[in-house]
Amino acid sequence: METLQKLYKHLEKIYHFNSVVSLLSWDQETYMPERAFEHRSQQMGLMASLIHQLKTTELQEILKDINLNELQRRDFLIVKRVKQDLDKWSKIPEKLAVQLTEVTSQAQYYWDKAKKNDDFDTFAPYLEKIVSLKIEEAHCLGFEQNPYDALLEDYEKGLKASDFEKVIRPIVEEFYQKKSNSVLTTNPFKCTIPAYEQLKFANQFIQDLGFDFRRGRQDISSHPFSNAISIHDIRITTRIMEEDLQYMLYSTIHETGHALYEMGLNTELLGTPYSETCSLTIHESQSRFWENNIGRSLPFCKFLASKLQEYLPQYFSEVSPEALFYTLNEVKPNFIRTESDEVTYHLHIALRFELERDLVNQVIQVKDLPTLWKEKMQSYLGIIPPNDSLGVLQDVHWSAGLIGYFPTYSLGSFYAAQIYSHLKSLYPDFDFHIEKGNFDFIHQWLKENIFSKGRMFYSHEILQQATGNPLLPNAFKDYITSKLELV
Amino acid sequence: METLQKLYKHLEKIYHFNSVVSLLSWDQETYMPERAFEHRSQQMGLMASLIHQLKTTELQEILKDINLNELQRRDFLIVKRVKQDLDKWSKIPEKLAVQLTEVTSQAQYYWDKAKKNDDFDTFAPYLEKIVSLKIEEAHCLGFEQNPYDALLEDYEKGLKASDFEKVIRPIVEEFYQKKSNSVLTTNPFKCTIPAYEQLKFANQFIQDLGFDFRRGRQDISSHPFSNAISIHDIRITTRIMEEDLQYMLYSTIHETGHALYEMGLNTELLGTPYSETCSLTIHESQSRFWENNIGRSLPFCKFLASKLQEYLPQYFSEVSPEALFYTLNEVKPNFIRTESDEVTYHLHIALRFELERDLVNQVIQVKDLPTLWKEKMQSYLGIIPPNDSLGVLQDVHWSAGLIGYFPTYSLGSFYAAQIYSHLKSLYPDFDFHIEKGNFDFIHQWLKENIFSKGRMFYSHEILQQATGNPLLPNAFKDYITSKLELV
Repeated sequence: METLQKLYKHLEKIYHFNSVVSLLSWDQETYMPERAFEHRSQQMGLMASLIHQLKTTELQEILKDINLNELQRRDFLIVKRVKQDLDKWSKIPEKLAVQLTEVTSQAQYYWDKAKKNDDFDTFAPYLEKIVSLKIEEAHCLGFEQNPYDALLEDYEKGLKASDFEKVIRPIVEEFYQKKSNSVLTTNPFKCTIPAYEQLKFANQFIQDLGFDFRRGRQDISSHPFSNAISIHDIRITTRIMEEDLQYMLYSTIHETGHALYEMGLNTELLGTPYSETCSLTIHESQSRFWENNIGRSLPFCKFLASKLQEYLPQYFSEVSPEALFYTLNEVKPNFIRTESDEVTYHLHIALRFELERDLVNQVIQVKDLPTLWKEKMQSYLGIIPPNDSLGVLQDVHWSAGLIGYFPTYSLGSFYAAQIYSHLKSLYPDFDFHIEKGNFDFIHQWLKENIFSKGRMFYSHEILQQATGNPLLPNAFKDYITSKLELV
Repeated sequence: METLQKLYKHLEKIYHFNSVVSLLSWDQETYMPERAFEHRSQQMGLMASLIHQLKTTELQEILKDINLNELQRRDFLIVKRVKQDLDKWSKIPEKLAVQLTEVTSQAQYYWDKAKKNDDFDTFAPYLEKIVSLKIEEAHCLGFEQNPYDALLEDYEKGLKASDFEKVIRPIVEEFYQKKSNSVLTTNPFKCTIPAYEQLKFANQFIQDLGFDFRRGRQDISSHPFSNAISIHDIRITTRIMEEDLQYMLYSTIHETGHALYEMGLNTELLGTPYSETCSLTIHESQSRFWENNIGRSLPFCKFLASKLQEYLPQYFSEVSPEALFYTLNEVKPNFIRTESDEVTYHLHIALRFELERDLVNQVIQVKDLPTLWKEKMQSYLGIIPPNDSLGVLQDVHWSAGLIGYFPTYSLGSFYAAQIYSHLKSLYPDFDFHIEKGNFDFIHQWLKENIFSKGRMFYSHEILQQATGNPLLPNAFKDYITSKLELV
């Protein structure tokens, strides 16, 4: 079909332009000189305007000639999803898309500055602008009760604020009440290792996990992220604290989880849902799976111990896997979300969820955030961050316009637990393989059962197909319970 | 005038899209993972197509409403030049522009590979394609006698192959015959300094020369280059040989010269000739000025010696400015153009000039290049490179489609000598300032007399305005003569 080919060619064109935007963004967070930020935001704005036209008017023109009923199954699934995309994209006026791109590009510069100087006021006016544009976006997209739902939907189809309040939140709170006391141990990660040695180690180690450096790279940035510039160009970043290897390492493993997903996608029909990631929930299920379910397990600690001895013998002539395991699983409130254990982590999400929901509903204002943050930290975690850099300014997300993203970390963790439990039941020698650093069978299974589905199905459909079950919150409960019994 | 504002807005838009292309190119040469190169070439091709439309059809539409006679002087000069640009750009079909962009993007990957593996055949098919596209371009642009003139014109308005043959070449040859024997000295640059220490030193040192790191950065690449992504984002690269600091340092100073030009441009009316660099000749006059006229002078060697002691005391507890000076000015044939002294350098240019001219005139073929290169090296410089990596594969230019560029290095050196001589006559205490590392008065003068002219005049007009004279080849002769007397 000629029109179908035309559609695929058009989507591939959008894909390449999106790649360009991804590079502009990656560069801004890693290597761009500081004074370049104003122009970068204009470059991003122009690209956004260009892409918006390709994704709306021009796409519509091509789609109107395609009859869904005449298509083969794969094409049918793709075109169905693209038609839905078009409906959604067409609701956002070009001006809004451009403004959001420009403001978030600027905001990330001011957020970084604000975080470094512990000065929320530098960032506040940009966040105010972002919140107001996101509210506008929510109204353009439409919602039944809560404008925040429209934003959640952008990251996970069908997710509603009320789901988080009713289903996820209680589980998280229940576990926090039940948390066991950790076994006291010496933290083996605490020793001073120069940044360049840490980065070298990290690059060796993630290669062992399956990261392909011919198709990706790792750099340093203010806040770790993964950015799939294109299918063969997947970049992650980390951050380093010379006196604590864990700070870098578990952030790196998290981002590697994201990268392995991108590296395992179908490489045909680029720019179509056939070769795209499904959702942020599935994405976070992958990063959280490697960071936590695999990464904080005892068999993995045995593997890690052997690699620390191999790659960093001057610092780890001897290291106990058990000491790594206990250190990595200590349940203890932390100011920083990304450094938190698997239990308290979700209280960080709950806090952000509530603040986002209330901002978008205009119940609270940006200027109230620092105070509210501290109050909620005190109430949920019993600790108060000494400054905003360790509090409300810690995450990049809001500056990037990612309002509604955080709940997918919790939902993704639930997915990860279910996938982990399913894999363990499929492979009786699972732990043995992890201990030996043999991850190929996992890559294989994930690729076949999750990655290859692209974005042709919804997250919950893929989970059902892959594990034979809908989302079972008990999988997460059971996983945490058995871990808390161990530590 | 509303139409004039529309024109300026349109040119600014092209400017920002060009910035995006520059970033794609910079990234490809510095950090891009190897497997990403195919997609990068497609991204570049799409951007080229987009920009071509903006620069031709759309620009024409806007320009037709502007009457030159109604404009103020600055606007008049700008619009006049833009009309000439439009004439030129309109001669290149979009398809050719896109093909050239895509092929050169790929070719740079294969050139890099070929150079690393000393395997010309890997690169040859891409160079063949480039040569054939450049011949097509020459025919599109038009020429009187020699198609190569059409390509030279792209880098220096009015420069013809015959000028190089008749004017520049004899001067260069004359000096090579007269070259004095160098004073034998121990080379102080030869000591082993780790790459990261060299880069750190280079970054400190170029800051002393005036490089502004808030508006630029320096990285490592296969072949050093400077790339002005935008007015506040000027990036240079270098390469490092741990056992020879000069290898990195003088390449870095050369690229810094380019960067200082870009950093000193007008910051208004971006994308118009008011804020653009004039030509490659003026560009190379700046890089060669800092690298050679300033950088290899005895007063500069005194400054450099003090900085080596300050920044790298563990390697340079004592260093003689005279030893630096003699080492930097030894006239001795070298396989590598960028490592050559100020005399033999131009024989490298003559060699490339002849090969380019003959390729474009289809007198020779790409497959003949390795042999011809060796023959000409033997004939002009009396040395034969042991392999193609040290021969025909050494420069990035051809892979980037920059055929006709090399002669501007020689012409730029002539310009530099004239500017240098003029500055020395203006400032009697010139040497004293250089010795103290006070370069501000030079930046100031260059900015006022050269940089601020943008691209509103031709190179020779700017030279005339700045120094009060047309190009005087004797300035270069005198400069070299007096230097050869010293060493």
